[in-house]
Amino acid sequence: MNDRHIVKSYDRDLEAIQALIMKMGGLVEAAILEAAQSLENRDEELAERVRANDRAVDDLEQRVNEEAARLLALRQPSAGDLRTVLSVMKIGANLERIGDYAKNMAKRTGVLVQMSPIEGSAGAIRRMSMAVEAMLKDALDAYIQRDAELAQDVRLRDMEVDQMYNALFREFLTFMMEDPRNITACMHLHFIAKNIERMGDHVTSIAEQVIYLVTGELPEDERPKADRTAIDAPRA
Amino acid sequence: MNDRHIVKSYDRDLEAIQALIMKMGGLVEAAILEAAQSLENRDEELAERVRANDRAVDDLEQRVNEEAARLLALRQPSAGDLRTVLSVMKIGANLERIGDYAKNMAKRTGVLVQMSPIEGSAGAIRRMSMAVEAMLKDALDAYIQRDAELAQDVRLRDMEVDQMYNALFREFLTFMMEDPRNITACMHLHFIAKNIERMGDHVTSIAEQVIYLVTGELPEDERPKADRTAIDAPRA
Repeated sequence: MNDRHIVKSYDRDLEAIQALIMKMGGLVEAAILEAAQSLENRDEELAERVRANDRAVDDLEQRVNEEAARLLALRQPSAGDLRTVLSVMKIGANLERIGDYAKNMAKRTGVLVQMSPIEGSAGAIRRMSMAVEAMLKDALDAYIQRDAELAQDVRLRDMEVDQMYNALFREFLTFMMEDPRNITACMHLHFIAKNIERMGDHVTSIAEQVIYLVTGELPEDERPKADRTAIDAPRA
Repeated sequence: MNDRHIVKSYDRDLEAIQALIMKMGGLVEAAILEAAQSLENRDEELAERVRANDRAVDDLEQRVNEEAARLLALRQPSAGDLRTVLSVMKIGANLERIGDYAKNMAKRTGVLVQMSPIEGSAGAIRRMSMAVEAMLKDALDAYIQRDAELAQDVRLRDMEVDQMYNALFREFLTFMMEDPRNITACMHLHFIAKNIERMGDHVTSIAEQVIYLVTGELPEDERPKADRTAIDAPRA
C-alpha cells in the first residue's frame, strides 16, 4: 500500500463520517421545524413522530463517534486531519443535543394541547424555531464549504435568538401575573423558549468549530450573549 | 527511542491530562456547593466569586482539549488508549457544562436577593446541590479507580435528583398560583432547580464514560429518567 493509497482511503473515511453528520443535520433541522409546527397546530401525532425520530439522531451520533475513533486508531492522522476528526465529533455531539431539545419540545406539546392556548405564543415560538433552523442550515453549509465568514455570521445571529427569548420571557411573566390559570401553560412554553435559545447556543458552537477548522483558532472574543433574564428580569 | 520509552512517555502525558480533569472536578464541586450556599445565605459576594471562578474551569477544559489533541497527534495511541483519551475529552466537556450551570445559578442569586425569599426553597435547592455534588465526587472517584460498579451506582442516583426536581417544580407552581407576587422569584428558582437537574444529567454522562472505559460498552438500557414534568405536570 503506497502513501497515496492511504491518503485516499483516509479521505474516503472522513467523507463517510461527514455524510453521517449531514444526515444528522437534516434530521435535526426537520425536528426543529416539526416540533414548532406540532405546537402551533396542536398536532399530537406530529409531536409523537418528532419524539420517535430522535432515536435515529442518537444512533447516527453513536456511529459518528465509532467511525471517528476507528479512523483515529487506524490512520494516525496528521495535526490538521486530527483537528477535522475532533471537530466532526464535537459537531455530532452538538447536533445530538439540539435533537434532544426538539424532542423535549414535542413532549411538552403533548401537555400543552390539554390546556387553553396562550395567545400569540405558538407563533412566537415558531418564529424563534425558524431562526434557529436557518442558523443551523447555514452553520452546516459553512462546515461543508469551510466558510469561516458564514460561520461568523451565524455566530452573531445567535444574539437575535437570545433577544427573542428575552421578549418571550417577559411576555410569559405578564400572562402569569394577569391570570394564575395561565401559569402552568406559561411554564411549559417558557421551557420551550429556553430550549430553543439553548439550541441556538449549540448551533453557535458548531459555527465556532467551523471557524476553528478553517483558521486553527477558536474565536477570541467572548461569545456574544443576549440572554439577560438572569440579570435584569422584571420584578414582580 | 525504544518502545518502552514511548509507552512511559505516553502514560506520563495521559496522567498529566487526568490531573487537569481532577483539578477541574475539584473546582466544579466547590462551585456547586458555593452557588447553593450563596443563594441560601443571600451572599452576593460569594455569588460573584463563583461567577468569576468559572473562568478557571473554562481555561482548564481548553487545556485538556489541547493536550489530548497533542497526545493523539504525537503518540498514535492504540484502540484502548484512544478510548481513554476520547473519554477524558468528553468528561472535560461535561465538567465545563456543570461549571456553567453553577455560574448561572450564582447569577440568579444576584437577582433573587432583591426579592422576598420563597419559604423553604433555598434549603431544598441546597439539598439538591449536595446530592449532585456527592454524585460528581463519586463519578470522579469511579473514573480514577476505573470502578464501573460505583459509576453504575452514580447513574442510578440521578433518579433521586430528578425526583427532587419534580417535587420542587410542583411546589413553585403552587407558590405562584397562591400569590402572583411570587411569580418572578419562583421562575428564577425554578430555573436554578432545572439547572441542578441538568448538572445531574452531566454527572450521569461522566459515569457512563467510566462504564464505557472499563467495559468497552456504553450502558445498553435507556438512561433512567425521573423528570416527568414534561409529561404529567399538574394542570392549572
